[in-house]
Amino acid sequence: MNGAQALLRTLVASGVDVCFMNPGTSEMQFVAALDSTPQLRPVLALFEGVATGAADGFGRMADRPAATLLHLGPGLGNGIANLHNARRGRSPIVNIVGDHATYHKALDAPLESDIESLARPVSGWYRWTARPDDVAAHAAAAVAAALGAPGCVATLVLPADVSWLDANEESLPPEARRRPVVAGAIAPKAVRNRPDDEKMKAVAAALESGEPAALLLGGSSLRATGITAASRICERSGAKLLAEPFPARLERGAGLPSVERLAYFGELAQAQMGPLRHLVLVDAKRPVSAFAYPGKASDLVPAGCEVHVLAGADEDAVEALEALAERIGADSQAPKFHAQRRPDRPTGALTPAALGQAIGALLPEAAIISDESITGGIFVPDATAGAPRHDLLSLTGNSIGQGLPLAAGAAVACPDRPVLALEADGSAMYTIQALWTQAREGLDVTTVVLDNSSYGILNIELGRVGADAGGPIARSMLELGRPSLDFVAISDGLGVPAVRAETAGELAAALERAFAEDGPHLVHAIMV
Amino acid sequence: MNGAQALLRTLVASGVDVCFMNPGTSEMQFVAALDSTPQLRPVLALFEGVATGAADGFGRMADRPAATLLHLGPGLGNGIANLHNARRGRSPIVNIVGDHATYHKALDAPLESDIESLARPVSGWYRWTARPDDVAAHAAAAVAAALGAPGCVATLVLPADVSWLDANEESLPPEARRRPVVAGAIAPKAVRNRPDDEKMKAVAAALESGEPAALLLGGSSLRATGITAASRICERSGAKLLAEPFPARLERGAGLPSVERLAYFGELAQAQMGPLRHLVLVDAKRPVSAFAYPGKASDLVPAGCEVHVLAGADEDAVEALEALAERIGADSQAPKFHAQRRPDRPTGALTPAALGQAIGALLPEAAIISDESITGGIFVPDATAGAPRHDLLSLTGNSIGQGLPLAAGAAVACPDRPVLALEADGSAMYTIQALWTQAREGLDVTTVVLDNSSYGILNIELGRVGADAGGPIARSMLELGRPSLDFVAISDGLGVPAVRAETAGELAAALERAFAEDGPHLVHAIMV
Repeated sequence: MNGAQALLRTLVASGVDVCFMNPGTSEMQFVAALDSTPQLRPVLALFEGVATGAADGFGRMADRPAATLLHLGPGLGNGIANLHNARRGRSPIVNIVGDHATYHKALDAPLESDIESLARPVSGWYRWTARPDDVAAHAAAAVAAALGAPGCVATLVLPADVSWLDANEESLPPEARRRPVVAGAIAPKAVRNRPDDEKMKAVAAALESGEPAALLLGGSSLRATGITAASRICERSGAKLLAEPFPARLERGAGLPSVERLAYFGELAQAQMGPLRHLVLVDAKRPVSAFAYPGKASDLVPAGCEVHVLAGADEDAVEALEALAERIGADSQAPKFHAQRRPDRPTGALTPAALGQAIGALLPEAAIISDESITGGIFVPDATAGAPRHDLLSLTGNSIGQGLPLAAGAAVACPDRPVLALEADGSAMYTIQALWTQAREGLDVTTVVLDNSSYGILNIELGRVGADAGGPIARSMLELGRPSLDFVAISDGLGVPAVRAETAGELAAALERAFAEDGPHLVHAIMV
Repeated sequence: MNGAQALLRTLVASGVDVCFMNPGTSEMQFVAALDSTPQLRPVLALFEGVATGAADGFGRMADRPAATLLHLGPGLGNGIANLHNARRGRSPIVNIVGDHATYHKALDAPLESDIESLARPVSGWYRWTARPDDVAAHAAAAVAAALGAPGCVATLVLPADVSWLDANEESLPPEARRRPVVAGAIAPKAVRNRPDDEKMKAVAAALESGEPAALLLGGSSLRATGITAASRICERSGAKLLAEPFPARLERGAGLPSVERLAYFGELAQAQMGPLRHLVLVDAKRPVSAFAYPGKASDLVPAGCEVHVLAGADEDAVEALEALAERIGADSQAPKFHAQRRPDRPTGALTPAALGQAIGALLPEAAIISDESITGGIFVPDATAGAPRHDLLSLTGNSIGQGLPLAAGAAVACPDRPVLALEADGSAMYTIQALWTQAREGLDVTTVVLDNSSYGILNIELGRVGADAGGPIARSMLELGRPSLDFVAISDGLGVPAVRAETAGELAAALERAFAEDGPHLVHAIMV
């Protein structure tokens, strides 16, 4: 057994049974070991940002880490943008990076680089493994760290010789020594700390004060149980129920309480919070503007509003909400469930409103929405609030180029659920290679590319930063129509069947066909 | 005048008149300033790796830096792989990264990240600018650093408020105060140190000893003057003339001395060096294997061979070669020029040999070849040795995904020269978005994608690392044929007209048409 085999056996025993990879020479031992550990499903990506984004989507939906396999510093570099999103969403990922052999590093071969410096900004845990007999312990520690409180990207760097040299059987955890290795035999679980009683008392007093208050839910509190408990609390106390603007995973739809997400633009978020006197953070961060703007607030908490923390990222937010509900006598209070209500199927021009309607009318049962629609998808949240229950995955770290890989990873995690990727044209082009992985793996993902022939958000932002002096040259830098991107051709070229939709009716028909048929599809929606 | 305008004025005055960009909200002031500084040509990329790779290609061909414009840490992350290649090639690049406003950083907004940690591994110079009045000085220092000895990636990080706040006219260098600003008025030049006389004496003695010797040329010594001086020396002394395996820019073809590049595989490179007793490094590094392999040497210098350094990266290698030629009495020696000799136009199957023949037969005058052909292009160097004089740009840092962006940047630098990008199928998919920039800018680039439906090099490497135990699962991770990539469709979708070639004759005909017509073209070559 060599180091690579020790790694794979330990990963599988620890419940890591998927690896999104784009390997190179220094990772060939890992690749060669795949045949002896068939419990690990390897998923090939043409670009590392696809692998890391898919691992993020997998982690959000499976609540356990997938592994990645990346090629030295530059391969890691290509994966950093989506690891940044994963870090912000606190997704569990075991991020494996190959390195030159230990004795080769000092020679400064062309691919030598400072992997640690590149990895630290996106990693909650980092280790470089120097000896084959340390591989198993480091791999187990990486899985535990990824699943820790809160979850994180755990980066494990494996030099080539550490992969190819012999590792002792005794270096493996006992569960990884069995042949064949049993997937998930170790099964580390995410452990959250108990919430703090003193903080809860203060929150209860604030809610019972009669002063304007809101709960701001984030992270782990945005699943059905957390939202339901929060809704009881709000119904009982009169507090407003809000969610962070970019949740990693939000359960929503008919039969669940509906949560109002804070808007991306700070002024709108401030209006949502209004004259609050108490803002209760539940695994959420103090709300701040995504960007600074001249003359606009960066910190969005209303003046005179006291901020309370019910549960931090390392605490059990659901337990805290349920305990708070009990404390204020809301445990028998009925939550405010959203009724099933779908909009009519749209006709006419393909406007953002029509797009929202089409999705609201046709979203399948138990769907997963990967939302990177930016400006074009602005009406989708309202239009789908009463659609069948679904999960919404959003752009946690605001780094575009996430949507298509995330959808692929979610589909691998949940093969029985349909996935819908809502993707802006500009954002789609960062990791368009994800379509090929969707085709190769036969993933049930329907991608809608919302084409407004521009970086739509930047046309708004250009004015908001006070840069409206920009003339035709500036505006041309935000245009994507010269030449037009033909997403049908690109998608066909990557193996995903695609159609073009220029009206609301064409979009609805295309969605219906895509949802009815297994495997990946793409709809190029020409927006007006 | 705000900070962004101060930056643009200083860049233009310093001779930086092209910026490859993929901006976001924090860079909108830079974008808005473009209209007031039209001497700077902005080139939009759909992905940051395209922008950084194009800046590298520009720097190699123009011998002066282009700027980039990237969006915070994640945007920089996407550009890192090609900045790694630029670092290895010592290309001059002014790498501009936007950041949150100074006062916004402490709020840890979603896009906040440790930019410095990400930038340091690829940057020879780094600065974060805190005040608008420092922008001009930092920009001028960045240009000087990029052009220093040796060239480097100079990373300048500009917070949004530093861009939008007023800068004093007096903070500008005098040349940047003129209206309109004169491009290149400051014109810093790359300065190289004088070579060391003692080292030269030792090299001369070694060459005159009669023992087997070789010159190994790299970096700045691989232009016509350096190669010609080196050829005189070798003709006089009997030394072998070698080049590093991955030159940033190699001038070659008919009428120039031909230089033998060291092979990628260490065993072959060792065979090329044979029983050398003296290896003279001329702006080249001691030869090492790209990767380590079990039981194979990493350091490739033959046993008993003394390594001499004639010129380091910070010294004037051409001056050193010319002085050495004079010292050993080779200054009147005739160099060994390669005669013009083209292979016949190929027919039959589209093999790697036929590909080489087609390129050798048809390469236009004064072409620039961006070579990322990996295994498929193995016969091209021999077949083009007697083609009209051309420049070859290679994969300096061994990080694949460089070829298409590099070609775009070279075409921007040299609008009157035809560019040929030889691109492997796997490598093409990392930065395929470069085709759109080629179309948008009407660049005269002919791309040939060599399709062998696999990561061909990895099929070889899998065995070389001793991982030949890998079975069908391992081998499936190196296959690109499920589904097939249709590069004609992808290219059409990105705005570049494309054709498929399945025989040598079809390839030659497609090349001929593409070379005859201005603007970008792509040929999808199905290799056997």
